[in-house]
Amino acid sequence: MPVLEFKIQVLSRKQSAFVDITAELNRILREKRWEMGLLNLFVKHTTCGLTVNENADPNVLVDLTGRLEEMIPWSRGADRHLEGNSAAHLKSSFFGTNLTLPVSSNKLSLGTWQGVYLAEFDGPKTRTVHLNFIQ
Amino acid sequence: MPVLEFKIQVLSRKQSAFVDITAELNRILREKRWEMGLLNLFVKHTTCGLTVNENADPNVLVDLTGRLEEMIPWSRGADRHLEGNSAAHLKSSFFGTNLTLPVSSNKLSLGTWQGVYLAEFDGPKTRTVHLNFIQ
Amino acid sequence: MPVLEFKIQVLSRKQSAFVDITAELNRILREKRWEMGLLNLFVKHTTCGLTVNENADPNVLVDLTGRLEEMIPWSRGADRHLEGNSAAHLKSSFFGTNLTLPVSSNKLSLGTWQGVYLAEFDGPKTRTVHLNFIQ
Repeated sequence: MPVLEFKIQVLSRKQSAFVDITAELNRILREKRWEMGLLNLFVKHTTCGLTVNENADPNVLVDLTGRLEEMIPWSRGADRHLEGNSAAHLKSSFFGTNLTLPVSSNKLSLGTWQGVYLAEFDGPKTRTVHLNFIQ
Repeated sequence: MPVLEFKIQVLSRKQSAFVDITAELNRILREKRWEMGLLNLFVKHTTCGLTVNENADPNVLVDLTGRLEEMIPWSRGADRHLEGNSAAHLKSSFFGTNLTLPVSSNKLSLGTWQGVYLAEFDGPKTRTVHLNFIQ
Repeated sequence: MPVLEFKIQVLSRKQSAFVDITAELNRILREKRWEMGLLNLFVKHTTCGLTVNENADPNVLVDLTGRLEEMIPWSRGADRHLEGNSAAHLKSSFFGTNLTLPVSSNKLSLGTWQGVYLAEFDGPKTRTVHLNFIQ
């Protein structure tokens, strides 16, 4: 059976945001009857990323945002890129633009405390995530 | 042939540790006769990660641990998450929770100096790694 | 149809470099008639990585290189690894050694501003990238 594909749009509402897309991914797995295999996610942008992290205490995401801003400050005198968003490009390479996640029974096989996030580093923006299913 | 799956448990013995799982993965590839394709690894936790790095000089892993602690210190006054392990969550997003690795002749096709590690950032703990094989 | 494989060599010309391999990957997809599916890339080394980032303004890559050097300096008195390249090992784990990218119509399905890079952190060197195609 060949690899299947689909696209979703994700809206981020702030400059830095973790947008939880777990429920939407699980809805698509049910609708498309993608039952068991691997779901590959790829974000088609260079100033955001994809990550799996804590889905319970939202303060974890607040702490990640604060620590990222301190480690990789938005402004840096030596930056040459005129858009001024080189910090977002670096965060994107650190987080990565793709994930390959196990699926069984039409659901992502995540751990109890895991959610899947689009990590926005230069929002607000509408982002496209390319999905492929391997069965 | 559909995607196949399996799980392993990995025990970390310290708060920060790189646990080499290469030999165990190769043993599973032989036992299951997973001969040629891709092995996807996914760790079902939010305070550890998976990585491929040096398997020869253990001092590389000592240096990585020390540099990580300096860049992403365990304590940060502004952190709000009450468990106090936000540093481990950030390292997890930087390292990532999944790897997709080539397999041939029932072995991981790694470079000479590469090993596959569970990178523990909040141990000691027992961690579950979900394996899927695409052939 | 089973997973297919191929290898390419990539030459980096400086200690730190982002080598754009997008055109070569697309050429291989056409030549091998790998039409629709997922391309997995895996770099068989521990002091470089793979990433997707900006392909338009080369200053983005200059800024990333400068910011990386400031965050993860080459020299660190406490490093024990005698080769002295522990900084490159850490960057490799942050960027990651594998990517899984969507392919359609014999081309990588990248966003408009995305290119695929071998990120060299300890060059100049010749690097091997292992390709697998899932269809």
